[in-house]
This record gives sequence, C-alpha cells and structure tokens, in this order.
Amino acid sequence: MAKELKELTKRSDDYSQWYLDVVLKADLAENSAVRGCMVIKPYGYAIWEKVQRQLDDMFKETGHVNAYFPLFIPKSFLSKEADHVEGFAKECAVVTHYRLKNDPDGKGVVVDPEAKLEEELIVRPTSETIIWNTYRGWIQSYRDLPILCNQWANVVRWEMRTRLFLRTAEFLWQEGHTAHATKEEAEIESRKMLDVYAEFAEKYMALPVIKGVKSANERFAGAVETYTIEAMMQDGKALQSGTSHFLGQNFAKAFDVKFTDKDGKQDYVWATSWGVSTRLIGALIMAHSDDNGLVLPPKLAPYQVVIVPIYRSEEQLSEINKKVEGIISSLKALGISVKYDNADNKKPGWKFSEYELKGVPVRLAMGGRDLENNTIEVARRDTLTKETVSCDNLDTYIKDLLDEIQENIYQKALNTRTSKTISVETYEEFKEKIETGVFIMAHWDGTSETEEKIKAETKATIRCIPLDGDKTPGKCMVTGQPSTQRVVFAKAY
Amino acid sequence: MAKELKELTKRSDDYSQWYLDVVLKADLAENSAVRGCMVIKPYGYAIWEKVQRQLDDMFKETGHVNAYFPLFIPKSFLSKEADHVEGFAKECAVVTHYRLKNDPDGKGVVVDPEAKLEEELIVRPTSETIIWNTYRGWIQSYRDLPILCNQWANVVRWEMRTRLFLRTAEFLWQEGHTAHATKEEAEIESRKMLDVYAEFAEKYMALPVIKGVKSANERFAGAVETYTIEAMMQDGKALQSGTSHFLGQNFAKAFDVKFTDKDGKQDYVWATSWGVSTRLIGALIMAHSDDNGLVLPPKLAPYQVVIVPIYRSEEQLSEINKKVEGIISSLKALGISVKYDNADNKKPGWKFSEYELKGVPVRLAMGGRDLENNTIEVARRDTLTKETVSCDNLDTYIKDLLDEIQENIYQKALNTRTSKTISVETYEEFKEKIETGVFIMAHWDGTSETEEKIKAETKATIRCIPLDGDKTPGKCMVTGQPSTQRVVFAKAY
Repeated sequence: MAKELKELTKRSDDYSQWYLDVVLKADLAENSAVRGCMVIKPYGYAIWEKVQRQLDDMFKETGHVNAYFPLFIPKSFLSKEADHVEGFAKECAVVTHYRLKNDPDGKGVVVDPEAKLEEELIVRPTSETIIWNTYRGWIQSYRDLPILCNQWANVVRWEMRTRLFLRTAEFLWQEGHTAHATKEEAEIESRKMLDVYAEFAEKYMALPVIKGVKSANERFAGAVETYTIEAMMQDGKALQSGTSHFLGQNFAKAFDVKFTDKDGKQDYVWATSWGVSTRLIGALIMAHSDDNGLVLPPKLAPYQVVIVPIYRSEEQLSEINKKVEGIISSLKALGISVKYDNADNKKPGWKFSEYELKGVPVRLAMGGRDLENNTIEVARRDTLTKETVSCDNLDTYIKDLLDEIQENIYQKALNTRTSKTISVETYEEFKEKIETGVFIMAHWDGTSETEEKIKAETKATIRCIPLDGDKTPGKCMVTGQPSTQRVVFAKAY
Repeated sequence: MAKELKELTKRSDDYSQWYLDVVLKADLAENSAVRGCMVIKPYGYAIWEKVQRQLDDMFKETGHVNAYFPLFIPKSFLSKEADHVEGFAKECAVVTHYRLKNDPDGKGVVVDPEAKLEEELIVRPTSETIIWNTYRGWIQSYRDLPILCNQWANVVRWEMRTRLFLRTAEFLWQEGHTAHATKEEAEIESRKMLDVYAEFAEKYMALPVIKGVKSANERFAGAVETYTIEAMMQDGKALQSGTSHFLGQNFAKAFDVKFTDKDGKQDYVWATSWGVSTRLIGALIMAHSDDNGLVLPPKLAPYQVVIVPIYRSEEQLSEINKKVEGIISSLKALGISVKYDNADNKKPGWKFSEYELKGVPVRLAMGGRDLENNTIEVARRDTLTKETVSCDNLDTYIKDLLDEIQENIYQKALNTRTSKTISVETYEEFKEKIETGVFIMAHWDGTSETEEKIKAETKATIRCIPLDGDKTPGKCMVTGQPSTQRVVFAKAY
C-alpha cells in the first residue's frame, strides 16, 4: 500500500499523538466506521497471532483446553450476580430485534417492530454468567472437577472514550474460566495464571511487570480478589496488562452450581477467571517504541529479519538474490522468520524507513561491495546501530543478536521503570511528584475513602498491592493510620 | 465429567436423532440458554482448532494474511448492495441500545431508553460491507492491489430452525475478502480458493466433494458467481461445505472503491470472498460416523492414539506405565498425538466405549500378557477390528496405520457417494428416486422457473453445476429444452 512516509510526532512533544502516529503509520490498526470499534490491520494482527500462539501454548502446558460459548448473554443473567451487573450494565451493546424490513417510506431498511425479542440479549462484555450457567449442566460430582477452560473471543464494552488497542468498544481477548472443588485449589489456579501472564510479559513482550493484588475499588465486578500485572509505559503511566480473578463461590451461587464431594456432601463450586486482550499490543508499542516508530521484541515480531538488496543492475540483483537465498534458508533453519524485499518499485532508503517504522528487529542490507567481500550490513532496530559482518556463520550470529535485542529491550524498559519509581513519605510530596510521570511507592491505610480522596485530588490510583518485595509496615501518607506495606500508585491508561 | 454411556439411536432408525446423539454424547457441543446459539465443548473445539490450523496454513501458503474487522455493521451499510440486504436483512441481530439501567420497579435491569443508538448496528452476518467500506481507504492505485485478507470470526444469522453445528444462529468461520485490479485475477482467486477448500476436504476431512458453480437461485447475495464444494452425507443428502464467490465490482461500486491503473485510468476494484465454518464439523460427523459414535479422520482427530492399560495390581500398572512411556515418546517423535489414560476410577471397558464414542482413530491396550510377550493390542476405530502386534517398530506401524485409516475413511465416503449417485432422464423417475436419498445427475434447462418448480415439488435443489466430469449436452428432464450438461440435484442440509 503506497503511502507517504512522514515523520512521527515526537514523544516529548505529544506522547498521545506519537502513540496514534505509530499505530497508524506502522499499519497496525485504524478506526472503523463503527464508533469505538477498530480495524486490526494485517501487520497488527500478525503481532496478535504471535501473542495468541504463545499464550495458547502456555495455557495448554498448564492443563487448559479451549472451548467456545455464545456471544450473547440473556439480560436476566447479568442481574444474577449483583456486583457484576453493577460493573457491566452501564456500557453494553443490547440486541433487541432480530429482523430488518424494507422502509415503507424509502429505499433503505428499518428495524421490524414485529421482530422484537422477548428478552433482550447483551453482547458479552465478559462471559462469567453464560459460562457458569453452562457449567451447572457439566458439574455434578468432584469427579467432574476441575474444569479448566479458556476461550479466545471478541467482547464488547461500550466505552465512551476510546483509543486504538488501549480502549476500544470491541476488543479481542482470551478469558479463562475454571471451576474447582476447593477454595485453596481455585486460589492456586488464579495465582498460577498470574504467573503465566507475568512470564509471558517479561520473556516474550520484554515488559517488566509488577505482580500484585488490586484494592477493593479496582477489583473485577464479581471477584473476591483480583490479581494484576502492571507495566510502566515510557511516560511513567501504568498499564494494567492482565488480570486473574479468584471469584470465590459468587458465580456458583448466582447460577446454582453445586457438586457432591468425596464424602457425599454438597457444596458450591469455586471459580477463577483470567484474561488478557489486544490491549497488550498497545502496551508493546508504548513501552518500547521510539520517535522513529515501532520497536518490537524479536519474539513477537511478525518477521524478525528483513533483507534489502542494494544494486545497480539487474545482473547484480540476480547475484545478490542468489547469495541471499542461501542466507534465508540458513536463517529459517534456525527458526528465524525472514522477509526478503527485492521489490523494484521502491528505493532502498524508502525500504529502510519503512522497516524501521514497522519495528523489524534486524535489517540486513547487501550491496555490490558486500558481494565481493562476502559481507553484509546488519542494522539493529533497538539501538539504531549498524555494522558490517562476514556472511560466514551469519545464521548463529543473527540468532544470538536476536536474543541480545530481546534482552536489551527488556533491560531498557526495566531501567525506565527503575528510574521512574520513587518512594514518598508525605502526601504533599506525592501530589508534586505524581505529576512528573512516576510510579510512587507509598503507605496507605487500606481504606477505600483514602484511595478515593487521592484519586479525586490527583487522578492517581492504586495500581496494586505488590506480592513481592518490601513488606515493611508504616503509616499512611494521607491519614497517618497504620499501613502493612507500601503500594504502587500511578496514573494509568 | 461423569456420564452414563448409553447406546446411540441407530442411523437406520432415525438419522437426525442419531446425529444429535453423537454430537451430545461425544461431548462435541450442546445447546445454550440463548436460542440457536451453541456451546462448543472442549472436544468439539479441539477438532475446530485442527481445522483452523490447517486451513490457516493453506491460506498463508497461498499468500493471504489475517486481519480483523468490526463485529458491528451500521444498518445503512447493508442497504448499499441491493441483493446483499435482500439476503441478510430478514434474519439478523440488531443492536439498538448501549446501556441498561436498574429497573425502577424491580431488582433486575432494563434497557435504558435514553441510550438509544442514532443508527442501529447489525451483528455481522458476513463482512463484505464493513470490509469494502474499509478497503476504500486502503486502495488508491494498482500498487495497493491485490489485497488478500482473511478473518477468523464469529457471525450471526437469525435462523429460525437450528441444528448443532449445521445451522446455528451464531457460528464460527473464516471469511476471505480479496481485492484485485482485474476481473481475470479475481476470477482466478475465487477458483483457487475453491481448490484449497476441495483439497482440505479431501485430504484432511477425508470427504470427497464435487466442485461446481451455483445456479442463480442458490448464489450468495451480492455475488456474480458462487463456487461451491458439495459433499454427500450417509443419508444421501448434500451438505454445502464451502463457498467461494466472485463478486465482480458489486461491492466496489456500492462502497465507491476505485483505483488508478498503470495507464492512469480509474476503475472499480474487483472482489472475491470465500468462507467455511463450524458447519464442517457437522459434515465430518455425518459423513463418517457410525452407530457406535464418532469416526474421525486421523488428520483432524484431537488425539490420534489412545493407550489404555489393563492391570491386576499396582505393581503391574507401574510396569505397564514404564513400557508405555517409551511407546509414547517414540510415537510423539513421529508427530503422532497420543493420550495415555491410566486413570484408576474407570474400568478398561468403560474407557474402550468412551474412546470409541469419541472416534479416536487408534486404541492401544496393554495387559500382563502383552508385557511378557512384548506385544500390544491395536484396535482401529474405522473398521472396529483388533489385532495384537509386536512392540518392535510400533511407531512406524502406527504411522502407516493412521495413513491407511485416513485413506480408508475417504474411500468409504467415496464409495457411498458413488453408490448413491444416479443419472435419470425423466422427471417421473426423478421424483421417485430423489426420495431414496441420492444425488441425481440430470439435465436442466438453465432457468430459475424450472429449478423452482422442482424444488417446490420435490424439495430437491440444484447443488451445483459441476466444473469437472461429463459435459455432454442433452434435454431438460422437465421442459425438454436444451441443456448444456447434467447438474447435481439433491436434498440438502
């Protein structure tokens, strides 16, 4: 697709506009004709496919299977769990009719008033209700447990202010829904999946995350406990990157799902749910990219290496093609994905900018002198550095380089987070420092009132009560009441 | 999940009930609380994942990429292509509101009348309209073409009479949508994807299909030409298993999508679309299964081999476990998927019936005597035969056996179709024979009138005008008018 390559807005000038520029110009996604719904373009979707494949493997390794539940939820189901309906009813798409008819007054179509549904259907904002209504039929005895299902699906939440990938009316996600015989087993499951998410974020997305528990205010609607992984974006804001919920027996009670245990006693089933979404792609972009465009960690890049020939004649091109063919097959043999761009309607300089914008981790360029010298130019996207290396053992060289890039991107993000994480002791200092784009570790008295006051006055929220790290008690920076440990405050996406 | 293993209804007693029994008892799917929407259970979904993975690879090998477009279609978009709206408006889910509120009179929730959408949204029944509205922004010049996108998605068609997998209000599918600079290229694409579907059906589903063109009456709403693959089920009925449409410039005109060609001339873009759905799982079941349950072709079976130990003591079990461990790793090394079921709460006989019901292609059983003799019992699901073989070279033996089973299942389906395909010359004979469950090759005058008369009188439709095979002209069995070739008539799902 021909397009003008323009400079991106600089991060330092307008971070939000820079983000939007990257999404649009790297061909990741665009807004659609439907308010709040995005089109995920092939290059953006290819990243999502990498995310899916890897997470799906990790879910299966931990004993989960996939299934599929209906898109629609009967309105009455939502009401069965009180907190749940409170959380989702205010922004949901409601199906009321099942037919259109020709407009008697015009050439279009109108809703047929005679085709009104008896009960309205909600387009799923999340699937706990329809799934627990189904599980009632699947579970009689402890022998039927655990159920460890995951679903890859689209969901809809009628958000009023949307932003590509980060917050859209429709988004793609996976939602795990598990059923257990004991509270302990369900709690272990919810923590296990949090660990899976953290491992995925750190190893694949190159994104350091803080694992923690949400405060009551920020808990999932219907959960007893919500675990979260929180990541820092380059502007110091937090992005909630995945959540895992221990749901207790709330949904089992709402949908009357009981089982008989080994001793013949009946009890309600224990539940978890956990999900990550296309929001992760927003996190990827905001955590690693720069003023030249996208920077992708090699493990999630649609292609890890692009090769561009630089030639003066058709004859030279055909020599380069031949040489590159060998390089491609040796790289592929090591599991490295490669694109060779020898299209003749674009200049090398245009291609260089294009692949830089698209965040391809390694760019190789081969010209006439390289042919003579058995060398090739290697450019790293993460550091924007170049060097000329020998073609001998290029495959293992590139393999090591991709590992190094993956690690470097992670370290860079970790350094950013370290340098932008501070501790404060007083609320005065908090109010001043929170404006500079930082994570603040501070003491909090554990009450919703204090949390709400802080949010109202500073727009910062408690991102999580960290599971790991410093557990020294102290005094709440606002009220002076006792605090069991510091929690993470930040402004968030 | 504990369940009583009951006998299935026999095919000869009630084919429809037998089908339903297989779907339910093999744990493939079930009806949900939402009218016409099914729950695809883990075992059924695992088959769909195999289908997806294989087709996705084939699409990518033929140059396609995946993308994702919105679930919702503005009502006005549907009206832009006249035939299209005619085809889909009568059965679609319409979103009219975006919020619920607490019922002032009760404890539930009601639609908030103040949250009415300005324009109603249709849950996509297919995505030509939203996609072509998007393509307008992607295409300016011939350099932007072709666009070769596919989407894996859920769609909704408000069918009044539904049947698990075969016809459901919501179903999962893939829809390819391509854009081309020339008519010829689009025609080639639509035929190419028909070939991909036919190859998939025959090689992976073990399902012989007839490739053909639909008559005008059976054409996709908005297409210039619809290509189809038609398969025969065991009762002699046809099941349309995949379609590929040459859309001409219809959607480009409806959404004003033009491009500038090499000579600077503007023209509308040429289009195709093509799709297969979870319906394929219905086809799999109905084509191959028997009165004992599901029969799966090895290439799409969630696991190809199940191993069951038969033991008298814990000690013997641990010896068998050790022996089986080696067998499993040698099978896995050949890419064969294996499940070892040594659960101690079920008897071998129960397990045998269970895996027979679930259509696992090969069942291995090892007992005490096998341990002594270095043998194992091998049972084939397709033929229900057993033999005892040596454990030496068991891996290659099983690999060959799986290939043989795949081929045998295909041959069986092909033999069924051959024996139930007849030619007739007169309409009298047609009316008699069509009631016996057959494909009838007959001459037709090419008019919609004749086709409709036949359909009204016999419920048989023209499944397709075959692309391959006999092209001898003749005379229409109804009107005596000239016919260019025989076409396939059948009753259909």
